[in-house]
Amino acid sequence: MSECFEITYKDAFGRIGKLDTLHGTVETPTLMPVINPNVVLVTPEEMRRVGAAMLMTNAYIIYRNSRLRDAALSDGIHALLRFDGPIMTDSGAFQLSRYGTVEFNSGEIVEFQRDIGADIGTPIDIPTRPDAPREQALTELQITCERIQEAVRCCGTDMLVAAPIQGSTHPDLRERYARIVSQLNADVYPIGAVVPLMESYRYTDLIKIIAASKLGLELNGPVHLFGAGHPMMFALAVALGCDLFDSAAYALYARDGRYLTANGTYKINNLAYLPCSCPVCSAGERRLTERELAQHNLWVSFAEINTIKQAIVDGMLWELVERRCRHPSLLQALRAAQKSFASFELIEPQASSFLYTSTESCARPQVRRFIRRLTNLELEGRILFTTDKQRTQHMEQRFDMTMLMKPPFGPYPLELAETAPIGQSEVANKDQTSIKSALRNLTELIICSNIDATFVYDSQWEHEDLAQLRLYATLVRLDDCYDTTV
Amino acid sequence: MSECFEITYKDAFGRIGKLDTLHGTVETPTLMPVINPNVVLVTPEEMRRVGAAMLMTNAYIIYRNSRLRDAALSDGIHALLRFDGPIMTDSGAFQLSRYGTVEFNSGEIVEFQRDIGADIGTPIDIPTRPDAPREQALTELQITCERIQEAVRCCGTDMLVAAPIQGSTHPDLRERYARIVSQLNADVYPIGAVVPLMESYRYTDLIKIIAASKLGLELNGPVHLFGAGHPMMFALAVALGCDLFDSAAYALYARDGRYLTANGTYKINNLAYLPCSCPVCSAGERRLTERELAQHNLWVSFAEINTIKQAIVDGMLWELVERRCRHPSLLQALRAAQKSFASFELIEPQASSFLYTSTESCARPQVRRFIRRLTNLELEGRILFTTDKQRTQHMEQRFDMTMLMKPPFGPYPLELAETAPIGQSEVANKDQTSIKSALRNLTELIICSNIDATFVYDSQWEHEDLAQLRLYATLVRLDDCYDTTV
Repeated sequence: MSECFEITYKDAFGRIGKLDTLHGTVETPTLMPVINPNVVLVTPEEMRRVGAAMLMTNAYIIYRNSRLRDAALSDGIHALLRFDGPIMTDSGAFQLSRYGTVEFNSGEIVEFQRDIGADIGTPIDIPTRPDAPREQALTELQITCERIQEAVRCCGTDMLVAAPIQGSTHPDLRERYARIVSQLNADVYPIGAVVPLMESYRYTDLIKIIAASKLGLELNGPVHLFGAGHPMMFALAVALGCDLFDSAAYALYARDGRYLTANGTYKINNLAYLPCSCPVCSAGERRLTERELAQHNLWVSFAEINTIKQAIVDGMLWELVERRCRHPSLLQALRAAQKSFASFELIEPQASSFLYTSTESCARPQVRRFIRRLTNLELEGRILFTTDKQRTQHMEQRFDMTMLMKPPFGPYPLELAETAPIGQSEVANKDQTSIKSALRNLTELIICSNIDATFVYDSQWEHEDLAQLRLYATLVRLDDCYDTTV
Repeated sequence: MSECFEITYKDAFGRIGKLDTLHGTVETPTLMPVINPNVVLVTPEEMRRVGAAMLMTNAYIIYRNSRLRDAALSDGIHALLRFDGPIMTDSGAFQLSRYGTVEFNSGEIVEFQRDIGADIGTPIDIPTRPDAPREQALTELQITCERIQEAVRCCGTDMLVAAPIQGSTHPDLRERYARIVSQLNADVYPIGAVVPLMESYRYTDLIKIIAASKLGLELNGPVHLFGAGHPMMFALAVALGCDLFDSAAYALYARDGRYLTANGTYKINNLAYLPCSCPVCSAGERRLTERELAQHNLWVSFAEINTIKQAIVDGMLWELVERRCRHPSLLQALRAAQKSFASFELIEPQASSFLYTSTESCARPQVRRFIRRLTNLELEGRILFTTDKQRTQHMEQRFDMTMLMKPPFGPYPLELAETAPIGQSEVANKDQTSIKSALRNLTELIICSNIDATFVYDSQWEHEDLAQLRLYATLVRLDDCYDTTV
């Protein structure tokens, strides 16, 4: 259990938290801009102004360069970077994944991180690439595990230790090792080796990996999505329980002339207009330098972090995620997430409101959970479910109870009309997906409570799923209910 | 026909245009911040910095105040407001709608607008309220029409004349009078009396009014959505053909402590974080003054205008609209717009790409038009439609032609696989709505071309609409196609 992390707000599976370090407490979710001490494009001071509370740098790069190494050892990493907030250091695992080898062993580099005063240090984990064979993933996981244990043993009292979750694209390995790694007394849990997935827009695979890792990890540990720096996927990742991001993207994208937004990427040379009001874009220049582009990329990233935090406070994180996941690859990932996270349903906090943004809203845990909670009602005898209470009023005396229908939730007793989520929901006109969702919940309620149900529906409710419902309930068209004998 | 307006780019039914005035050319779509000369919260100079190229003010307020009136008459409205770009003036119609009466007649106030050098002047039209009886709307429309004629006659050579389209919530009256007003030699076409609809979130009614007005107006006239100042509906309104907005909202919302965003409104007192990077929000203050709030409201509004313009240039306006219309009331309006504008399909320019954002993407004109264009193909004889070309290859020799299926578009010949929209489309995994759309188009193609069609589909394509398709084609499950005799 992570003693450095305290959760203050929750929504969906995301949370606002406080991460304690030797250089102060940082509020999460947050983004750690990555500083390359050899090439400082945006200074730490400027980053602070943009909203960075915590930075990340690469201990391996510093260790390899004798000038930087000596300076870091004598004055500390905070003096070297001129930043007095928390600093997380990476170990060279990225270099390992790119070049296949690094010159030092994990223990050596972890001790170096401790010695230069890193707030969070990382062993050299093995970032098994996507689609690697299971045996390879397993072997490399075991090495990573040993190195985490070594790092905790050697330095765990002097700095927070990051314990990367690996396992390639094998969700069961991710889950199993997340469970094991949870027991190693580390502090922060990076989900590793996901950059190749993001680079090739394999967001659905990414989501499966996050879901599997979260299932194995304890819920109150801070989770770092290692290498994720594009603001367009922050909302989804936070909603699934990620707390920390790091961004080299701001600089790498700037080098390629790419302009980040919370909805995707533009090539700066293709922009006739700057669709942003950040201090860089609002200064009136049409042509941005690489440095200005990097600054813009940071501004939009931190504005998105704030947007997400506000959504958590407001209990509107799913709404934000549904707004954001509109690129086809992210939409597909959102739909996958809704499936993967169905099992988390019960631990999701109760949201206070519900805005229907799209057919994807029907798959929110709130909708499924709504009907699970209704099954706690004492339901028995003959129950009338109706889509038009007024026109079926004459039938009510023949039933023990009457319930109304609201898509996408389904049936609810009149007494719950003012309570959440029914009372606090705003829903667009019904569509086929929301009707299907309501009918599914109605069917589930009838089956679970084993009642004698009659469903009176108006023509807008005609849906193929009525055929299945007919197995469990008497169905009556509203127009026919005057001459029916029910 | 409007000679002051030239269209340079088109996408959906929106466009980028150039509006010529005596004080320079303004690029549309744009927002005219409204200045109340009695209470200047943000100065015209600051507005220019935020991106305002054109302002709006109320001639009625100036006319009623002897000090302002004298100054305007002697030095001109541009000197009074200290703004050298174009200025549009309103006439008091708003006051008429609020207080039921104004002290002057329309001719008098129009001449005043001319005399103070307004670039665009407006007669006192009668802003018939929503849901007014048809007879009232008609009577008031006739008065408005006469006043427009009078304004054009008296001042049409000295300034551009705005010719408001009224007609309450009667779409047929809006359309008919838009047609009449188009012939009056006015220059700019405000769609009027829509503020009460927006205030009560009746966006669906608003859309019907815009659609009806556009149907009546000539396509190349600049259209002003009078009183629309909330950035969350700019994208939808532009996509439906609106070119000008005016915003008193920036100041009115600020007075109420409300913080605008392109996705909705926050109460500033409920914001724990500022979800924005504009110069005001990025200055590090948590508490914004009314003036700062007004500035923020302008910054986000102009950032949204830029976002929209860029989307038009990129041919991605429908994608942007679908992202933006995620509040339930706007989603409902978008769905209504897709229906109302179906008749405009043929005049929409050809977009180069297609990103699937949501089930609403299936209703884009591009999808319907795709199949209309296919019917130009010479199709005859026996045609095989297949969802899996590889597994049906053995069947091809028995057919005259083979076509593939891509949701939401439907059938396409292999030769079109690389051309727009099939080749330039990115689509998430199929869903029930996109399958339904593809089947609808398939059915339409088969009916129109009167061919002998066989449709081989895999299990993901099971959909109730197959029943209807069976009337026109031989249906074969992919798994059965080895032992079928087709």
